[in-house]
Amino acid sequence: MFVNRRVIRIEWGDCDPAGIVYFPRYVEHFDNCTTHLFEVALGINKPAMLNAFGMAGFPMVDLNVRFMIPSVFGDDVMVESAVAEFGRSSFKVSHRLLRGDDLAVEARETRVWTAYDPAEPGKLKSLPVPDEVRAKLG
Amino acid sequence: MFVNRRVIRIEWGDCDPAGIVYFPRYVEHFDNCTTHLFEVALGINKPAMLNAFGMAGFPMVDLNVRFMIPSVFGDDVMVESAVAEFGRSSFKVSHRLLRGDDLAVEARETRVWTAYDPAEPGKLKSLPVPDEVRAKLG
Amino acid sequence: MFVNRRVIRIEWGDCDPAGIVYFPRYVEHFDNCTTHLFEVALGINKPAMLNAFGMAGFPMVDLNVRFMIPSVFGDDVMVESAVAEFGRSSFKVSHRLLRGDDLAVEARETRVWTAYDPAEPGKLKSLPVPDEVRAKLG
Amino acid sequence: MFVNRRVIRIEWGDCDPAGIVYFPRYVEHFDNCTTHLFEVALGINKPAMLNAFGMAGFPMVDLNVRFMIPSVFGDDVMVESAVAEFGRSSFKVSHRLLRGDDLAVEARETRVWTAYDPAEPGKLKSLPVPDEVRAKLG
Repeated sequence: MFVNRRVIRIEWGDCDPAGIVYFPRYVEHFDNCTTHLFEVALGINKPAMLNAFGMAGFPMVDLNVRFMIPSVFGDDVMVESAVAEFGRSSFKVSHRLLRGDDLAVEARETRVWTAYDPAEPGKLKSLPVPDEVRAKLG
Repeated sequence: MFVNRRVIRIEWGDCDPAGIVYFPRYVEHFDNCTTHLFEVALGINKPAMLNAFGMAGFPMVDLNVRFMIPSVFGDDVMVESAVAEFGRSSFKVSHRLLRGDDLAVEARETRVWTAYDPAEPGKLKSLPVPDEVRAKLG
Repeated sequence: MFVNRRVIRIEWGDCDPAGIVYFPRYVEHFDNCTTHLFEVALGINKPAMLNAFGMAGFPMVDLNVRFMIPSVFGDDVMVESAVAEFGRSSFKVSHRLLRGDDLAVEARETRVWTAYDPAEPGKLKSLPVPDEVRAKLG
Repeated sequence: MFVNRRVIRIEWGDCDPAGIVYFPRYVEHFDNCTTHLFEVALGINKPAMLNAFGMAGFPMVDLNVRFMIPSVFGDDVMVESAVAEFGRSSFKVSHRLLRGDDLAVEARETRVWTAYDPAEPGKLKSLPVPDEVRAKLG
């Protein structure tokens, strides 16, 4: 399993009047971590990846997040991201956000590999995850 | 069960280059819907509620969101919010986002009723959800 | 001069650890106010407006914001928006955010009426602001 | 004049349905750049800086942004930030966002060095910018 690690600086605008990260900001940070996970594993950035695989993206269909320890302004937290499981066209991405040695937030994203449907302009259809992607991230 | 309904306008800044709502924005909209649910049910806004109940808030501990149908710029979507279940100090809020008659996004938030702990400045401790809150939202 | 007024609820996620609105959130609220100003004045929403006028939008070219009085979580503030000045293809939108009777934030946006350039796919070109728009907002 | 340079990756959630950065996101990126400018120049992060100087922060009082060239998802842009001018308690921060060699966005922030006023709890008062700060950033 390919694991990507990124340090994220908690910025002032990530935090709320309680002085801790406003939880929807984690959801956005994790989405970015998924993008970076694929970029690092495949060696091309996401726009190039969309081109290379003729895909429209991998939209989220199900998201689960558990919040255990808050983070505060100025923290540098570490996010470990990996594809935990591949289905035919869906896959699950796991994110573990560590504050020091402690697991602070944990997320599981279920996404689907999709392309624009030539039969219905503007509509998406699911596609099998390419073998190359499975090989590099599995 | 007390249900609050709000119409949310999908704004340009809610949407991504695919032309649909960027999913973390839903998470923030749902958080606001929870605030409004309590405000409407209790008849006081959240700052007044924090005062009235001597509480620090009801932080999120677990969040689940299912994304079924995308929404686009200019849509007016309806969110139905309710407390689906009360534990002793935790409770589950459900949100159903409707696009026309279709259930487009569904969320389940688990939150905990908390106060600042007089024994440990800056720390939160969980408290039983007050009976008045159970009565008005249950 | 057509003036549109909107009440904006300051939400938890709009605010920062100082307990006041994080200033970039105002910039997004004002952008939404510009959209609503045109919607109310023209009687059609922005997607319909883009179609009706064959336009790509009115991107921002210059933004000035003055911050005088902070707002806090739970405030209902009023924003008064109007086109203060029309050039040939550019125009200036003014926003006045009132907290009670006090002018709290003031913004001036310079935007340009644009269409996609048929000669260069993906590129924008400026167009004269249509007379109907001048008449209804002027 | 101390200049700090940071590369910013344009993320999916920074961009709008036109496929370009939604302009309020720049305003937040620039705010973070100001934080990093002081952190790098002073050698301590912002929470430590607030402590060290007994200050409450440097709230924005006036913001001007000029948008010249759009950026798109996946771009790595460079932001050059510096204090362009010091007054007694106010100062002007300039940000130049470069896309390749081109100046794409330019901002000027006017901020005020403040502390909590012991005479009026919760209120801020302006203070002279400390000489050490002027020396390290001027």
